[in-house]
Amino acid sequence: MSRLTIFGIDGLPEITPGVDLASLIASAAAAGGDDLRDGDVVVVTQKIVSKAEDRLVAIDPDDPLGHKPLVEAEAVRVLRRRGELLITETAHGFVCANAGIDLSNVDRGFAALLPVDPDRSARRIRDGLRGKAGVEVAVIVSDTFGRTWRRGVTDVAIGCAGVAAVVDLRGTTDALGRELQVTEVCVADELASAAELVMGKALGVPVAVVRGVDPTWLRDGSVQGEVVRAPADDLFR
Amino acid sequence: MSRLTIFGIDGLPEITPGVDLASLIASAAAAGGDDLRDGDVVVVTQKIVSKAEDRLVAIDPDDPLGHKPLVEAEAVRVLRRRGELLITETAHGFVCANAGIDLSNVDRGFAALLPVDPDRSARRIRDGLRGKAGVEVAVIVSDTFGRTWRRGVTDVAIGCAGVAAVVDLRGTTDALGRELQVTEVCVADELASAAELVMGKALGVPVAVVRGVDPTWLRDGSVQGEVVRAPADDLFR
Repeated sequence: MSRLTIFGIDGLPEITPGVDLASLIASAAAAGGDDLRDGDVVVVTQKIVSKAEDRLVAIDPDDPLGHKPLVEAEAVRVLRRRGELLITETAHGFVCANAGIDLSNVDRGFAALLPVDPDRSARRIRDGLRGKAGVEVAVIVSDTFGRTWRRGVTDVAIGCAGVAAVVDLRGTTDALGRELQVTEVCVADELASAAELVMGKALGVPVAVVRGVDPTWLRDGSVQGEVVRAPADDLFR
Repeated sequence: MSRLTIFGIDGLPEITPGVDLASLIASAAAAGGDDLRDGDVVVVTQKIVSKAEDRLVAIDPDDPLGHKPLVEAEAVRVLRRRGELLITETAHGFVCANAGIDLSNVDRGFAALLPVDPDRSARRIRDGLRGKAGVEVAVIVSDTFGRTWRRGVTDVAIGCAGVAAVVDLRGTTDALGRELQVTEVCVADELASAAELVMGKALGVPVAVVRGVDPTWLRDGSVQGEVVRAPADDLFR
C-alpha cells in the first residue's frame, strides 16, 4: 500500500533576483533534518520562482490598483470582468484571475509576474538539485487559482519537471474488470494541492516535499504540454 | 513544522446497499495495522457511498448510452453539450460532467447516482466512526470532476463533516506583514486531491486517510454551504 509523506521546508532566506533556488532549497532541507531523496516531488510556489527570476515590476505603492495596467498587458485575452476582477488568459494559456499577478508576499511597491516558462523553471530547479544535492527529484511550480462554480482557491501546477502532469489510465480496467471511462488524472495539480496543505499561505513556507509517489509517474512531464487545454477544445471560452 | 501522512485503506469488501460503511472502514483500517486516530481526515470515494446508500439504478446493459436518460433526469440544468458529453448542474449545485453519473466500478447493467446529500453522508460516516471506533475524525466524500481550461480530472470534495470546507485567511497577514488578498482556501478539495494520490482509480482503494492536518480546520464544515457558488455569483453560467 502506498504511503505519502508531505512536509514543508522552512528556513529559506528572503529570495532575491538571481539567487540559486536549488542550492537554497537543498540547504534548507538539510538544515531541517530532511535531506531530499531520489523520487521526492519538490513543490515550489510561484512567488519565490518569480522573485528568483526577477519577474518583479515596480508599481505605484500608493495606488491600490497600480498593478492593473500590468494585468492588461500580461493578459492575451480577457474572458470576464467584474469590477476590478479580470478573468484572463495568459500567454502560457492559463486562465486565471488578473493574469496571475498579485501583491502578497512581495515588497510594497512591486508586483510579481508569472515566470515566463514555468516548465523550464521547474527543469532548472530539478537540474540544480541534481547538481547540488546529488538527488533525482521531480519539481512542480505551484500557484493559487480560483475555479469556476466552486468557491475557494486551490493550488495547481503551472510547471513541472521529472513528473507526469497527467497520468493516462485509458485502457486499464477498474476493480470490477470494466474499462475505465474517466481516466486522465492531473496528478501534478493534485500534488500541488497536497503540498499546499502544509504551506499555509500566511506562514511563509514556500517549498514542500511529497515523498512516496508512484514511481511510474516520475517521467518527463510538462504542464504546458499536458494540462493547458486548447481554446478549440474548451467549452467555456 | 506540520507533516502529513496519507495512506489508503484497502481490504474493504464489495459494498452493497445498506451496509454500515463506518464499521467496514474501521475494521479494514484496524486489520491493516492503521487504526484510525482522533484528528484523522477520512476520505471516502463517492462510489462506495452511493452503493451503500442504494443509489444504483438498473440500465440496459447492452446500450452504451443506457445511462443517458438518467443524466437528463438528474441534471437541473445543462450548461454545455458536446456529442455525448453533457456539462450539467445537479440538484446539489455541483457543475460536472453527466450529472456525476458514471459506470466505472459498478456492476454491468447499473449506473451510480450521486448521494442525495453528500454532507449528510459524511456526517453519518463520521458519527458511525465515533460510535464504532471511538475516534473523533473528519470525513470527506470525494468525487472526480473535470475542470474548465485544464485537461485531466482531479478529485474534489462533494461532502464533508468535522472539517472546514473553506478556510478563510482574510485579515491575516503574509510573511511580509501585508494583508493577504487571495485568502479563501478550499482545503476540502485539496484534501480530496491529496487522498486520490494513494487511491489510484484502478486499484480499488476507495478510502484514504490524511493524518496530521491543521487542528484549527477541524470544525463543522459543509461543501454545500461553503463551496457551491451561487449562480448569481458565477461568471461562467
